Amino acid sequence: MFLGNIDPELQLGVLDQVTAPTLVACDTMNYWIQSKRDVLLELLRHIDVLMVNDSEARELSGDWNIYRAARWVLGRGPKRVVIKQGEHGALLAEGDRVFKVPGYPLEEVFDPTGAGDAFAGGFMAHLAKTGDVSEPNLRRAMVYGAAMGSFAVEAFGVQRFEQVTAKDVEARVQGFLQLTQFDVPRPGR
Amino acid sequence: MFLGNIDPELQLGVLDQVTAPTLVACDTMNYWIQSKRDVLLELLRHIDVLMVNDSEARELSGDWNIYRAARWVLGRGPKRVVIKQGEHGALLAEGDRVFKVPGYPLEEVFDPTGAGDAFAGGFMAHLAKTGDVSEPNLRRAMVYGAAMGSFAVEAFGVQRFEQVTAKDVEARVQGFLQLTQFDVPRPGR
Repeated sequence: MFLGNIDPELQLGVLDQVTAPTLVACDTMNYWIQSKRDVLLELLRHIDVLMVNDSEARELSGDWNIYRAARWVLGRGPKRVVIKQGEHGALLAEGDRVFKVPGYPLEEVFDPTGAGDAFAGGFMAHLAKTGDVSEPNLRRAMVYGAAMGSFAVEAFGVQRFEQVTAKDVEARVQGFLQLTQFDVPRPGR
Repeated sequence: MFLGNIDPELQLGVLDQVTAPTLVACDTMNYWIQSKRDVLLELLRHIDVLMVNDSEARELSGDWNIYRAARWVLGRGPKRVVIKQGEHGALLAEGDRVFKVPGYPLEEVFDPTGAGDAFAGGFMAHLAKTGDVSEPNLRRAMVYGAAMGSFAVEAFGVQRFEQVTAKDVEARVQGFLQLTQFDVPRPGR
């Protein structure tokens, strides 16, 4: 279940109407952080994943360091926090562990509007499709989110998604693998 | 061989004195990009890896997009370009391929001075130690560079390196593996 960016009182109201969701993720924005902070903090106690961008994480926690901000969120209820960092990708923090997916290398960026929402869509869709909320699968969901965010910025509005196929998405996910993978000997060797 | 950030005329002079180096990497800065552009472009024709930060790559290429800037450099001589992006890590571009290593998650950053030089030291030291300039090993070198850069910022000046052991370096390199790795089914499944 994904609670999109609306008044946290409404988010709580929506949450109350859903029976035993497998996983609840939640977005918010500066407006609610400033005007409905107490309700937002109450909401945090009832969700599994907070998904915000870096400036929202900083504003909410009052800490400029993004990893301390993540730890602050993890102390307020959510077991996981996703922090989106625009062209620099996104991070997933859980306990003491951090996973990072970079931004996809694009030589042409037309319109960053909606990239964060596309990220959330890819992330939640992967979890919904697989029904698996384990950490390895959350990492995969981060990559699907980053892939969808990278498509979003290639054209204005949602235009790019009129063309993108499932095959395109899988190819881009493989692109993220090529972009990030390296091998080093494991300890003990 | 690493040509540190000095006048590109001197860098060319140093290069002339070395017989058949396995790999030549080179740093530079805004001052030389502005004042000795022609000599710098001549130098680029004789090196294997240009290693600069993002603002230098943008200034040198005249392009704000970092991937187009990388491609511009690759068209001027070097087979590879490394672009350092501070807290956001670094990228290695070669042909159409890009590798990214993220910045290490640090809750305390004391002094970013020298992080780029520490990165270059870790990168070159790994290549020198292994004698292997293949792409997989260049990726590993990027991770060693990022590891050394992450130590550099944890204390003032070079203080952190008075304590860091080879074991600490290996542990941090494993940390980068934990930070970045995910698995997705390969194509054809």
